Amino acid sequence: MQLYSFFNSSTAYRVRIALALKGVPFDYVPVNIRSGEHRAADYVDAVNPSAAVPAVSEDGFALGQSLAIVDWLDARHPEPRLIPAQPEQRARVLELSCLIACDIHPLNNLRVLKYLDATLQVAPEQKSAWYNHWIEEGMSGVERLLAKHGGGPWCFGDQPTLADCCLVPQIANALRMGCDLGAYSRSMAVYEHAAAHPAFKRAEPKAQKDFVAP
Amino acid sequence: MQLYSFFNSSTAYRVRIALALKGVPFDYVPVNIRSGEHRAADYVDAVNPSAAVPAVSEDGFALGQSLAIVDWLDARHPEPRLIPAQPEQRARVLELSCLIACDIHPLNNLRVLKYLDATLQVAPEQKSAWYNHWIEEGMSGVERLLAKHGGGPWCFGDQPTLADCCLVPQIANALRMGCDLGAYSRSMAVYEHAAAHPAFKRAEPKAQKDFVAP
Repeated sequence: MQLYSFFNSSTAYRVRIALALKGVPFDYVPVNIRSGEHRAADYVDAVNPSAAVPAVSEDGFALGQSLAIVDWLDARHPEPRLIPAQPEQRARVLELSCLIACDIHPLNNLRVLKYLDATLQVAPEQKSAWYNHWIEEGMSGVERLLAKHGGGPWCFGDQPTLADCCLVPQIANALRMGCDLGAYSRSMAVYEHAAAHPAFKRAEPKAQKDFVAP
Repeated sequence: MQLYSFFNSSTAYRVRIALALKGVPFDYVPVNIRSGEHRAADYVDAVNPSAAVPAVSEDGFALGQSLAIVDWLDARHPEPRLIPAQPEQRARVLELSCLIACDIHPLNNLRVLKYLDATLQVAPEQKSAWYNHWIEEGMSGVERLLAKHGGGPWCFGDQPTLADCCLVPQIANALRMGCDLGAYSRSMAVYEHAAAHPAFKRAEPKAQKDFVAP
């Protein structure tokens, strides 16, 4: 299997965690989204028509979108399962994962911050306020969901799921941007628990071969 | 079943299509996101901790996030199935659905447009350029995915799936905002095919009891 990844991409980070938890061997193919390699015609044509990371490729089958990839990995490499089979448990995992993947991360990723800078030419403090606003909106929801339905040490019980694969990169990203996450104690407890897990360590940006120090 | 919805919400529209395709009876509970009803304490506490529409509730089980809801509906009301069981078909449906749900819609929904207006105070033409930019970015990817993997009359073959439940509201939204979608002929062909289907008609904003003319 090939994984097309950029060290600093939160969505690629989700898939790296999933692959590490499952112990699936893969070739790491760096795609530098800062320099626009994800838009190169050969990548878009042969690997990912949506021109983004992550993507995976195996036996001629290529797939983009981190949540779709983890779902597919669960079919192809079922152990450990990251999206539970039982409908209500599954619903909780997908609900929290989608809250992060649809309501938080898309507003704060590289392409959006670039647009705020280059096209809207907002001031640095406005960009920072934007980032913090969507973190606060979204993480308040994450925290309420964990309070109502969660139960540690992972988001939902004693095994990591897709929800943890989404939460950990989101929190790492927010910490890198200097957000104060003190109000989200349940989320931070999961994050700190995950930080000690070897699969989560292997998936960190700084452990990737294309890592560049800030 | 209760569906918590706002007529003009694209994400609620996805779930309305799914419910109509499955023929599941439900009570429509309007939640006016323009006036902030989704943030009311009783709604957040009892129905949706992430303070958004859509949400569904049945037999004491409440769930938010449109993709999680459709996945759960497929377990609870399996006919017709909207996310295929076969891993590669399933991957394609989820890939396209996530492209819309994670990469297009989150940047152009009501709360973001409000933030551009009220907080960043961008000019109307800047707001329009923002909207069009993310439509162009995302719809180009949708169109390339359909060219590579699709096959009508629906996104993937002769039955509607979650991908169609996501595509139709996204295109309806873009048309309402005055976008030129002429470049996306495959997507528009699916949209026009869906427009004639009774379930898609029943799910339209203007067919909802909380509809208000623009």
